[in-house]
Amino acid sequence: MASSAARDTSSARETIYQAISAIRLVDPHTHINPHTPASSTLADILGYHYYTELVHSAGMPRQEIEEPGIGPRELVRRMVHGLGNITNTANYHWLLQICREFFDFNDDAITPDNWESLYDAAEEKMNGAGWAQTVLDQSNVEAVFLTNDFDDELEGFDSSTYIPCLRTDDLVFHLAKPEVRGRLERCSGVPLDGTLGSLRAALEQRFEHFVSHGARACAISIPPTFQPTMVDDGAAQNALDHVLRHDTGSEDAQRDALSRRVFWTLAELCDQYGLPFDLMIGVNRGVYPSGVYQGQDLYDSRVSLIQYKELFNAFPKVKFPVSVLASVTNQELVSYSWIFPNVLTNGHWWYSNTPSFIHRDAAARLEAVPRNKQIAYYSDAYKLEFVLPKFDMYRRILSRVLADEFVGENGWSEEKAIQLGRQVLRGNVDEVFRSPL
Amino acid sequence: MASSAARDTSSARETIYQAISAIRLVDPHTHINPHTPASSTLADILGYHYYTELVHSAGMPRQEIEEPGIGPRELVRRMVHGLGNITNTANYHWLLQICREFFDFNDDAITPDNWESLYDAAEEKMNGAGWAQTVLDQSNVEAVFLTNDFDDELEGFDSSTYIPCLRTDDLVFHLAKPEVRGRLERCSGVPLDGTLGSLRAALEQRFEHFVSHGARACAISIPPTFQPTMVDDGAAQNALDHVLRHDTGSEDAQRDALSRRVFWTLAELCDQYGLPFDLMIGVNRGVYPSGVYQGQDLYDSRVSLIQYKELFNAFPKVKFPVSVLASVTNQELVSYSWIFPNVLTNGHWWYSNTPSFIHRDAAARLEAVPRNKQIAYYSDAYKLEFVLPKFDMYRRILSRVLADEFVGENGWSEEKAIQLGRQVLRGNVDEVFRSPL
Amino acid sequence: MASSAARDTSSARETIYQAISAIRLVDPHTHINPHTPASSTLADILGYHYYTELVHSAGMPRQEIEEPGIGPRELVRRMVHGLGNITNTANYHWLLQICREFFDFNDDAITPDNWESLYDAAEEKMNGAGWAQTVLDQSNVEAVFLTNDFDDELEGFDSSTYIPCLRTDDLVFHLAKPEVRGRLERCSGVPLDGTLGSLRAALEQRFEHFVSHGARACAISIPPTFQPTMVDDGAAQNALDHVLRHDTGSEDAQRDALSRRVFWTLAELCDQYGLPFDLMIGVNRGVYPSGVYQGQDLYDSRVSLIQYKELFNAFPKVKFPVSVLASVTNQELVSYSWIFPNVLTNGHWWYSNTPSFIHRDAAARLEAVPRNKQIAYYSDAYKLEFVLPKFDMYRRILSRVLADEFVGENGWSEEKAIQLGRQVLRGNVDEVFRSPL
Ligand SMILES: [Zn+2]
Ligand SMILES: [Zn+2]
Ligand SMILES: [Zn+2]
Repeated sequence: MASSAARDTSSARETIYQAISAIRLVDPHTHINPHTPASSTLADILGYHYYTELVHSAGMPRQEIEEPGIGPRELVRRMVHGLGNITNTANYHWLLQICREFFDFNDDAITPDNWESLYDAAEEKMNGAGWAQTVLDQSNVEAVFLTNDFDDELEGFDSSTYIPCLRTDDLVFHLAKPEVRGRLERCSGVPLDGTLGSLRAALEQRFEHFVSHGARACAISIPPTFQPTMVDDGAAQNALDHVLRHDTGSEDAQRDALSRRVFWTLAELCDQYGLPFDLMIGVNRGVYPSGVYQGQDLYDSRVSLIQYKELFNAFPKVKFPVSVLASVTNQELVSYSWIFPNVLTNGHWWYSNTPSFIHRDAAARLEAVPRNKQIAYYSDAYKLEFVLPKFDMYRRILSRVLADEFVGENGWSEEKAIQLGRQVLRGNVDEVFRSPL
Repeated sequence: MASSAARDTSSARETIYQAISAIRLVDPHTHINPHTPASSTLADILGYHYYTELVHSAGMPRQEIEEPGIGPRELVRRMVHGLGNITNTANYHWLLQICREFFDFNDDAITPDNWESLYDAAEEKMNGAGWAQTVLDQSNVEAVFLTNDFDDELEGFDSSTYIPCLRTDDLVFHLAKPEVRGRLERCSGVPLDGTLGSLRAALEQRFEHFVSHGARACAISIPPTFQPTMVDDGAAQNALDHVLRHDTGSEDAQRDALSRRVFWTLAELCDQYGLPFDLMIGVNRGVYPSGVYQGQDLYDSRVSLIQYKELFNAFPKVKFPVSVLASVTNQELVSYSWIFPNVLTNGHWWYSNTPSFIHRDAAARLEAVPRNKQIAYYSDAYKLEFVLPKFDMYRRILSRVLADEFVGENGWSEEKAIQLGRQVLRGNVDEVFRSPL
Repeated sequence: MASSAARDTSSARETIYQAISAIRLVDPHTHINPHTPASSTLADILGYHYYTELVHSAGMPRQEIEEPGIGPRELVRRMVHGLGNITNTANYHWLLQICREFFDFNDDAITPDNWESLYDAAEEKMNGAGWAQTVLDQSNVEAVFLTNDFDDELEGFDSSTYIPCLRTDDLVFHLAKPEVRGRLERCSGVPLDGTLGSLRAALEQRFEHFVSHGARACAISIPPTFQPTMVDDGAAQNALDHVLRHDTGSEDAQRDALSRRVFWTLAELCDQYGLPFDLMIGVNRGVYPSGVYQGQDLYDSRVSLIQYKELFNAFPKVKFPVSVLASVTNQELVSYSWIFPNVLTNGHWWYSNTPSFIHRDAAARLEAVPRNKQIAYYSDAYKLEFVLPKFDMYRRILSRVLADEFVGENGWSEEKAIQLGRQVLRGNVDEVFRSPL
């Protein structure tokens, strides 16, 4: 029998970490605004919902954080007074790393005593010429995917660095709102005349627009109760008629039928236009309506990918990179990706994007899902400065898993482990989200 | 890029462990009887349901364990014959540690050959003067919270060491039993005249009584199906009328409505009286009715904190320290505590109180929940001797997480890690459960 | 206070691993065909659904893998071209270990360049005299449990090496198919005359047949929605009447009632004949009907053992070794085995049979379930060659848990840890599945 003694893997871990840190990244999901991709002041950093919601949860009233009219410096001053309660969080570690990597910060914590000089140092850097490009270069990032509203013009930025992605939540879940239908009519130029045909034509026009402007993915976030299924023409027309008459006062069942019909149409269009359809499964919006901006959503972890059985079977040629909100769903994601050719694992999302959940979820994927079907990570960042610390958190964990489990337990060479890391971090992003043009 | 090599954290772990072991504890949830807080014989130790149920599960008939009339020595003799099957369990490790720390036991196991001298040694110690205080001192424990029936007189003990806590399961889930209503009338002095007003008055009298006697928390354990919501006066009066007519023969829906109304009233009274409301979520009672005493309860892990959405929103000023029975619910607990200011993480309860579940659950909390919102641990002990081994199990795991993840991965100093440990182990207990008077 | 420094456990791990690798195994669940227990060519290895489904999921069309008429060499050639995408998987590691242990393979990977010599080397070994016995001996395996259809004659093999097990999925879930009822009539010799009595007589005859031929267990795999409950004679006769009239066109509720009645009858017969009833809980069949053979099943992880409450209470003398498909159910399994004397933990099944899930699930069991109630592992193998690498994967993880948690954290001696390993790996298999004769 072979030996089973655990090797000391700290050296392997360091070697792997250095190697995968040298990989130039394409970040396959962010909320970056390509017109203002980087921060202008530290308030853009500390105003990120991860900080406002945590500081609020730790005791600061929402009114203090969101008081109308306060300037960026005052917001940062207030937020800094709440940071002491969240120094243990992964999110705070991102903040410290941003300050250290980009703003020459060397202290151990951001405090009422040192924040102002940090604020000034950051502002000076941010106001320098080409700050966004500086951040991209220092972060070793080649390109980031965007999250574009369906009526985004997609003009005025370089789509090889800022890659469009068609976000479809509004279309699927909010078509009962007259303003959403109005936006769709205006941007598509297709009058919605009450027929399913006009609705589909408008959606198709959007795919044309997005693909021709460099889009490489369609995406949606989905509540845990949603079950995508085909809705036949009769039922769909009924639902559409009803919703057009009642708008947001529609019956739940009718609105849900229309949601499922639109969703299905989007999947058909992904098929037709060669776009992957990113599914981000599991969020309940507005669970805590008194929370800070973007800090109101939570979830019911009782969701199953079995709800997507019909979808995955119906669209074998559409790639579905799937993100799950709760770690408990990760094993299903691993198993469905193991069986369905068109299901892929995609990143570590939101409430599962902290080290211990990433560690267990990534380990389970790396040992069971075909290596060409794993999108390791995306930052979900709103500002470019966050790409570095988030990816670095992931890289540290990936190095740990590769060193401990693949080099240590499986006897792999470091080079083999690095190749696996490279494939999931970058190679698969290029392959899965290649341009459909 | 910084180094990612894992540091050898065994020295940090030892340092942290020693430091947090020196913290004088307040145990925020036990079932200690303040009139007989410590054990009288080893039968009080081995009669704990963790041992009787495990030994029964491993093969010993319930009748052998619960035969009426057997004395404490005979019970211990019988139990010892079953211990060989459970030497692997965490619960057995608590037992060994109790015997070593308190009874000068030095053997590797408790066996049919050595139990009797252990029994005698323990009995001699327990019969010594001030045994309870000796245990408290040797365990470095300043105070323990109790679990008091709503009609407890709360007299005859020192409430600075034995802190009252109003347990409300009977009120919420068993008001259909005439004897429960009778107890409530007698202890409150409020005649229940069939009106909601009299019911509320009786409950309020109990809060007066408990708070004036030093209570610092209200608590309840809840089945996985329960969903607390407001029941309006009309529906509540209907439910009360029905339950008063039919007692335990009431319809489920009516009894459930009354449960939800009483629960809501308790939350209002917690608000009014400034008491935290400990929620212990997820237990199904009596799943194995042929099991030994207190060894009959299990659970359905398919529960979600989304069921508490309305409650958490309705009572922003009430602190809800939440315990979850199954580890799968821990991520929701982390996320809800991350978002809701009034939701806190509380201990590692029952079936999740074994090392591997504690390890993963504690790690997830420490990296994501504001540090001032985590109640690290409580013993749930019935006798004082159990506080030490249970807290010590937790301290070892906490040291491991702090050393590995905070010192090792995050680069924290040992001192910073110890401060975090101190805050979750003791500081937050003082803050969250401070006297409302 | 005792020290909490983590010991270096690599030496303990190696010692434990060597010791438990020397244990002669009885594999308590396989799908081995006792008439052709070992492989004839490498196609029997690479044709295992774990490889065909993964290679298919990674991109190879099903038609290429399952083209009618292709020979074993051609199948292997094709499969090898897909292996590059699954080199990271645990299943691929099994494959490499098989080739190294049995076929003198020394390369790092199976590639288009080296597969043919491997194929030839394997074929030569497999065609040698007594290959099956060679594999058993080299794998240190004394016996394997089979999975026999209810109408298996159980003749022509040595039932001390190949131990029969009555698989009952067809009886419980497919009795609506006339061919299943026909098979039951023919093999039992009992005409199914439409009465419950004749159905029970036929089932009882099967128990007679199996037990007299050396069977030591009854087994079934169960979808997540199934809830076994007693169906009284009236309802059961109604269901049987309906199903006999409508066959597979029966109403779901009637078919389900019949399923529950047959299941209950099997439990009664397990009681009567002294057979353990292996429950493998949680699989949804045919979720991906376009998948390769045996690569179509997935699951909904939202299942609870509370569904088995009535069963576990009704049959206290029947041992239920329980396997769960999803790791999230493992904690319930641990808790139910901790409380119910007749519930045992059994192996690491299918999608939970990869290292990270085994590690966490095994650790949770070892620390909480009585040691005499844990069946550590089974291979689920279709060919004997797979017993070795699967058990070896498990042994490595078991050594890791025993060394890290029991020797390292609990201070156990290596010898004590080895004894625990021996009990769960072999001792309990002998005890739980002892011959009922
Ligand atoms: Zn996003
Ligand atoms: Zn308790
Ligand atoms: Zn099987």
